[in-house]
Amino acid sequence: MESNLLNTIQTPADLRKLNPAQLPQLAQELRDFIIDVVSVKEGHLGASLGVTELTIALHYVFNTPADLLVWDVGHQAYGHKILTGRKDSFDTNRQLGGISGFPKRSESEYDTFGTGHSSTSISAALGMAIASQIKGDLEKTHIAVIGDASIASGMAFEGLNHAGVTDANLLVILNDNAIGIDPSVGALKHYLTQVKEGKNPRQNNMIKSLNFDYTGPIDGHDLPLLIKELQRLKNKKGPKFLHITTTKGKGLKQAEENQVKYHAPGKFDKLTGEVLAIADAHLPPKYQDVFGLTLVELAEQNDRIIGITPAMPSGSSMKFMMEVFPERAIDVGIAEQHAVTLAAGMATQGMVVFCNIYSTFLQRAYDQVIHDVALQNLPVIFCLDRAGIVGEDGATHHGVFDIAYLNCIPNLIIFAPLNEAELRNILYTAQLGLPHPIAIRYPRGRGENVNWQQPFKKIETGKALQLQLGTTTAILSTGTIGNNVTKALAQVDNAAIFSHYHFGFVKPLDENTLHSIFKNHAKIITIEDGCVTGGFGSTIISFAAKNNYNLKISTLGIPDEFIEHGSTAQLQQYCSIDVNSLKDIFSLC
Amino acid sequence: MESNLLNTIQTPADLRKLNPAQLPQLAQELRDFIIDVVSVKEGHLGASLGVTELTIALHYVFNTPADLLVWDVGHQAYGHKILTGRKDSFDTNRQLGGISGFPKRSESEYDTFGTGHSSTSISAALGMAIASQIKGDLEKTHIAVIGDASIASGMAFEGLNHAGVTDANLLVILNDNAIGIDPSVGALKHYLTQVKEGKNPRQNNMIKSLNFDYTGPIDGHDLPLLIKELQRLKNKKGPKFLHITTTKGKGLKQAEENQVKYHAPGKFDKLTGEVLAIADAHLPPKYQDVFGLTLVELAEQNDRIIGITPAMPSGSSMKFMMEVFPERAIDVGIAEQHAVTLAAGMATQGMVVFCNIYSTFLQRAYDQVIHDVALQNLPVIFCLDRAGIVGEDGATHHGVFDIAYLNCIPNLIIFAPLNEAELRNILYTAQLGLPHPIAIRYPRGRGENVNWQQPFKKIETGKALQLQLGTTTAILSTGTIGNNVTKALAQVDNAAIFSHYHFGFVKPLDENTLHSIFKNHAKIITIEDGCVTGGFGSTIISFAAKNNYNLKISTLGIPDEFIEHGSTAQLQQYCSIDVNSLKDIFSLC
Repeated sequence: MESNLLNTIQTPADLRKLNPAQLPQLAQELRDFIIDVVSVKEGHLGASLGVTELTIALHYVFNTPADLLVWDVGHQAYGHKILTGRKDSFDTNRQLGGISGFPKRSESEYDTFGTGHSSTSISAALGMAIASQIKGDLEKTHIAVIGDASIASGMAFEGLNHAGVTDANLLVILNDNAIGIDPSVGALKHYLTQVKEGKNPRQNNMIKSLNFDYTGPIDGHDLPLLIKELQRLKNKKGPKFLHITTTKGKGLKQAEENQVKYHAPGKFDKLTGEVLAIADAHLPPKYQDVFGLTLVELAEQNDRIIGITPAMPSGSSMKFMMEVFPERAIDVGIAEQHAVTLAAGMATQGMVVFCNIYSTFLQRAYDQVIHDVALQNLPVIFCLDRAGIVGEDGATHHGVFDIAYLNCIPNLIIFAPLNEAELRNILYTAQLGLPHPIAIRYPRGRGENVNWQQPFKKIETGKALQLQLGTTTAILSTGTIGNNVTKALAQVDNAAIFSHYHFGFVKPLDENTLHSIFKNHAKIITIEDGCVTGGFGSTIISFAAKNNYNLKISTLGIPDEFIEHGSTAQLQQYCSIDVNSLKDIFSLC
Repeated sequence: MESNLLNTIQTPADLRKLNPAQLPQLAQELRDFIIDVVSVKEGHLGASLGVTELTIALHYVFNTPADLLVWDVGHQAYGHKILTGRKDSFDTNRQLGGISGFPKRSESEYDTFGTGHSSTSISAALGMAIASQIKGDLEKTHIAVIGDASIASGMAFEGLNHAGVTDANLLVILNDNAIGIDPSVGALKHYLTQVKEGKNPRQNNMIKSLNFDYTGPIDGHDLPLLIKELQRLKNKKGPKFLHITTTKGKGLKQAEENQVKYHAPGKFDKLTGEVLAIADAHLPPKYQDVFGLTLVELAEQNDRIIGITPAMPSGSSMKFMMEVFPERAIDVGIAEQHAVTLAAGMATQGMVVFCNIYSTFLQRAYDQVIHDVALQNLPVIFCLDRAGIVGEDGATHHGVFDIAYLNCIPNLIIFAPLNEAELRNILYTAQLGLPHPIAIRYPRGRGENVNWQQPFKKIETGKALQLQLGTTTAILSTGTIGNNVTKALAQVDNAAIFSHYHFGFVKPLDENTLHSIFKNHAKIITIEDGCVTGGFGSTIISFAAKNNYNLKISTLGIPDEFIEHGSTAQLQQYCSIDVNSLKDIFSLC
């Protein structure tokens, strides 16, 4: 198809020169462009296809960037990026040095607020709107675009609850497509479904109860209707709420029909829409699947096991247990705080609760881990998927702070398995009953061994493993990054000087082994796929200080800065914890 | 008054032997008992007086502890404690070794879930209810009692959103008294007021929208009505919601009329109700007032300053700015997550935002500090009141983790002032404009100097202060605990061997001064009013390791355990950071 309109648009000012009748063609071109690029370069597809009309309408009606537009989560902002000066760089999306897959303030003045984690948009836009009021700028509109999965999270409710008693120029647009990454859940989703089906009288609804000027639901793919509504709302002051319904993946048949798969489908044929098969039969499993499949095995044996996921049944592979034991595996929606305290409540009644939350999202439930779980010493089993560097999702999503923020919490066990077998065995061990809560952190991506489904073995709490014994330098690693150490040691000439210890347990530390290590080596190197500040290495240094050991200790890991997006391998290289960097470091010892 | 009924009740089983006509007298006795004890021993008064009838009715109708009762926050649980075996120990409330001021699992089987932080009850009770379902126990009722301030917090919404799509035996009781510690705010409060005034049709309300079986509002002081309603609800399955209206402080005239003051009034005359005056005219100021009054001074000069408090206008002394600049000082309710991202949104528009959150409650907004503020390097000014040991509120409230959980966040400045003057000056300095967000932590209680309102001085970022120069041992302290060091040094014979440095900045560290310290001393002692694991001392140890210094470093602070309740002095002694303990430690150097 000839792309004659999209090419004319460098900024939304160009878009506003089009006449309304041209906009449907632009929508088609924008969709095609997104499909063209994402089919080859990968990325988040479905969300942006769903808001193509909304994106055009918003930039057409409002005076961006003077009017301030915040995209919740940001998966859906590809069209926005393309229309705001980043069409030519869109093929660098999510690549090292390229544009971010999420809105990002440093990238464009049109990206008014960086997103990635959900449900922040209402608070951020309201903050902007109140700032405008205080500055006396009463004409500016401040817009939050938020999905029905994100608006069900507590933080969004807090934003609505505040906004409803202000007279700030805030427009909240609910992009209701009944799905986040997985299908939306919860009572609010049920309510919205009723509203859409006309079963709930519109004149007295939840959003009006919160003091908003509510309109909707309207068809979010009907460009003339959208533009008319937005123009009307542009002239109204105070907090407004527009409820639109859209179809995730709109315009690509397969993406509409299989919305979970096409959220981020990887490479696909842009003509047929078919996802390109990856020959993964002989690859080691993803850690998430080791978790998900093992949990089913354990749940078959132990009827006290419950699984909880906050809106990540696919991503965490909790879906396997949800299929086999639907009563005992629960998706609570984007509600990490609730997920953790729900788990604590269940644990008081003797349930064995596996609460699976991505490392970066457990930040959302930090207080609940401290106040509801650890303080009461309830043996909840936290499974922190996506720990460490996560790659292309970038700075918002790296799970690099967890060791530091968990290590200071009394009563908590922290474990990072070396490989699939250890992940499997710690899951087995945890459900046998531990005297404390435990946080098990493991990375995004694949493991090391296709033959991982071996019989269960119990892991002794607090015990480190000696993987190699050498003469002078002890390498202490925690988690799967230890495999990089093993690979690097296999490539250096001076391998015999190195001992290598795997500290699965960051807490409690194996102090006996540590004493032995410090007495029998001249130098220590620690390695972790997490921030060095307050991380595993720092606990080793504190152990040494407490026990008056004066060995030189080097700590490798994530430096004290936010790490951008790129492939995991590239980012590990940036942090000097990839195999090649380690090889170089070890060679110089 | 003769207490002939209350004395007969050791457990709720005794209560259930009374006939309904006796219960109003019991309510009177229970109120009197609470007033008698709290007037002398201090504690949280108003909340428990407000739920006296509800407390009796719940234990009368339900089969506690088999039926599971969760009190949100727990300020209101004094009556519950007294009726469940703790009448005789109630005079030890909040004292070292005595009963906790909050529900606590280790204290009683009737305390099914420990609380202290708000809005956890629905999640916890739902967890219990789902566990009962899975265990096949379909008769048990699970009850969450939550106030209107707490239910407006996002976490509570997450719990409701999940509960509404379950068929769990959950009864949520909304204790609607229109006040938390300070008056409730927000759109939900506005909505509830309309409901109570009959302005909102009950047949189509918010709670019903969330799929609950809703009843109310009913008078929560009408015992026969309460009992009738609870008996009716006891026989209904699934998620139920009872909306009751109560008066905080009910039964003590002054407490009803001045609900903020009588939330926790200190000692008062139990007959007249008058709060006993404290002769504080010659005492140094509370740190919260140094913050609150200084903020007003600064806001008078700088019209970009905005203050935000999540539901603590009185406790944080944000009330002073709210009185003078109501448009620029905002109470957002119990909504720490929203508070932080709202601040971030404002900061994008050039506002100078002071976001005041108790240290322990910032745990609720940890992700927002990382993801919305620090990652975008927005210069929000976090003021963390109640940092360190807080005394009688105990384990749920100590602000001891903040240095550890903040130190790993890139881009963030962390400062702990030594005294009022430094708190004042860092507030001044921060609003001049810093290149990064800053977290300023200061303790509960009073400062050191009545003449604290001196002219502002700018503080140089990252600079430590030498307070004393000695010969061999360097003491490095951060924050107001440094005053304990000064006092201890004044009492030891060997004071001349000690240098004392105040590290206001935990991050960035003053590396120049540290190099000088390490080169000119033989031993280092670090002291902080925060957890040693991952705290200030650990950063000094890491600095030493990185720079190959082999001095002996001792780290004093909070050990790796949850610290219970008691006076701040007692708890500092427990942690060996009070003046006497420091004196003993220094004497042995």
